Amino acid sequence: MKTVAIIAPGAMGAAVAGVLTSHKLEVLTLLDNRSPRSVERARQAGMIAVNLDELMRAEAILSIVPPANAMALAESLAPTLKNSRVKPLYVDCNAISEQRVKQVNEAIVATGAAFVDGAIIGLPPAAADDSGPCFWFAGSRAAELRALERAGLRVKVMQEAQVGAASALKMSYAGINKGITLLSALMLINASRVGAADALWQEMNASQPVLMDRLRKAIPDMYSKAWRWAPEMEEIASLNQGELPGENLYMALADFCRQLADNQRDNGDYTQLLTDFLQRKE
Amino acid sequence: MKTVAIIAPGAMGAAVAGVLTSHKLEVLTLLDNRSPRSVERARQAGMIAVNLDELMRAEAILSIVPPANAMALAESLAPTLKNSRVKPLYVDCNAISEQRVKQVNEAIVATGAAFVDGAIIGLPPAAADDSGPCFWFAGSRAAELRALERAGLRVKVMQEAQVGAASALKMSYAGINKGITLLSALMLINASRVGAADALWQEMNASQPVLMDRLRKAIPDMYSKAWRWAPEMEEIASLNQGELPGENLYMALADFCRQLADNQRDNGDYTQLLTDFLQRKE
Repeated sequence: MKTVAIIAPGAMGAAVAGVLTSHKLEVLTLLDNRSPRSVERARQAGMIAVNLDELMRAEAILSIVPPANAMALAESLAPTLKNSRVKPLYVDCNAISEQRVKQVNEAIVATGAAFVDGAIIGLPPAAADDSGPCFWFAGSRAAELRALERAGLRVKVMQEAQVGAASALKMSYAGINKGITLLSALMLINASRVGAADALWQEMNASQPVLMDRLRKAIPDMYSKAWRWAPEMEEIASLNQGELPGENLYMALADFCRQLADNQRDNGDYTQLLTDFLQRKE
Repeated sequence: MKTVAIIAPGAMGAAVAGVLTSHKLEVLTLLDNRSPRSVERARQAGMIAVNLDELMRAEAILSIVPPANAMALAESLAPTLKNSRVKPLYVDCNAISEQRVKQVNEAIVATGAAFVDGAIIGLPPAAADDSGPCFWFAGSRAAELRALERAGLRVKVMQEAQVGAASALKMSYAGINKGITLLSALMLINASRVGAADALWQEMNASQPVLMDRLRKAIPDMYSKAWRWAPEMEEIASLNQGELPGENLYMALADFCRQLADNQRDNGDYTQLLTDFLQRKE
């Protein structure tokens, strides 16, 4: 691959673009109605701003947007994809449920373009660091994206997996890792409010030191992302409809994310209780 | 302390009694209507079966029963406590919510006996192993139970903590540790059902090896306890009523415990999916 498009130049999109451009790929993007911060991130990553028609010369379009925007992006590109003779491979890399990625797939294949289900697991790659996140791809055309390995990305193709499998992977992985952070944070807040923080801290340090290390890093990392995690927890809830109570579980975690985000805009006492607990010393 | 009572000789109660009798304490218990298995456990632990009146010569009564029986035990002992001139210190060591332990406290102090709120954190002590669970005690008479340290128990007195604090500690600790096990198990089952198990296993082994180690032990340990965890998760839910969504979160986990327990009596396919995932090799 020589030319790919990444939409949009958010924290993840721009960081991935930076890896690709440093490996001599041309990375196109759309900058209409983007914030000055995104425009600047795109510039620093060496991305090239184009219009919709010019976007069609990309061999692949990577959709890397907030979960709620995944379908809207597909719909906004569909008319141009439909009218274009040459059609880029459309790769949805977003944290959306299996059901939702299948809807995006339908919108794209209706234009005649091919679709790959993708999932990015890990944090945005740091500059000059190739050990970035792992890109998982599923669908009949997924193997073509192995080409991105030569451009500095960690790529895994899910064998014989259909569209939906990469999203299910991403949701399951996030459901466990982010779920652990949120569930623990909720209990730590409630324990602190009933005066059990001292004893809980002693007991956890003595009998759960590995978990405490995890939480000391994971919980503060979460504060500023809670607003973004809320819709992701809702996606996980929708993936987990059925006889097991995953839907109720993750809707409760989504509620907690929103309350944490609201509380930070308000008086921040939840994060203060968490910080007091996690930074406590013997 | 020379004489204590432990009711009942379940797995935890009998194991604790075994530690105490091996340190030359006399341990009384009630065996009316108990299963042959409990009677045998009591015998092996060196416990002495007595009637209600004889129980009153214990310096302390440790209530170690399933959460649902905590109040019923207090009520069944209350008339005898009330009529007794010498009243043992009543110590509720059960996994019950702060609200519920306060109700038990009321039932006991109404008899003129003193009450201590206790929490046992950890697995039952193994024979010939003094590094058993930790006993946390709260309430104005809690310090008297330091005497049990000389009888082989790990004892922590919660300073200036009122009745309810030990239960809140226990519920918070269990809520985090058991909650992590259950939430992860639920996601692993659902991921396996949508064909994401292979990829999830690879990704978790690569990026979450410490968590995988934890789950490989904690999830199989949970199978046979799921029926017992269900009411404990409900207690945690009741402790976490209020503005944060802890109640919904733990009611969902209680549902999952019941479904896991039912499924094991049925076809066991949930535990099979979990075992397949956890025992997978590269």
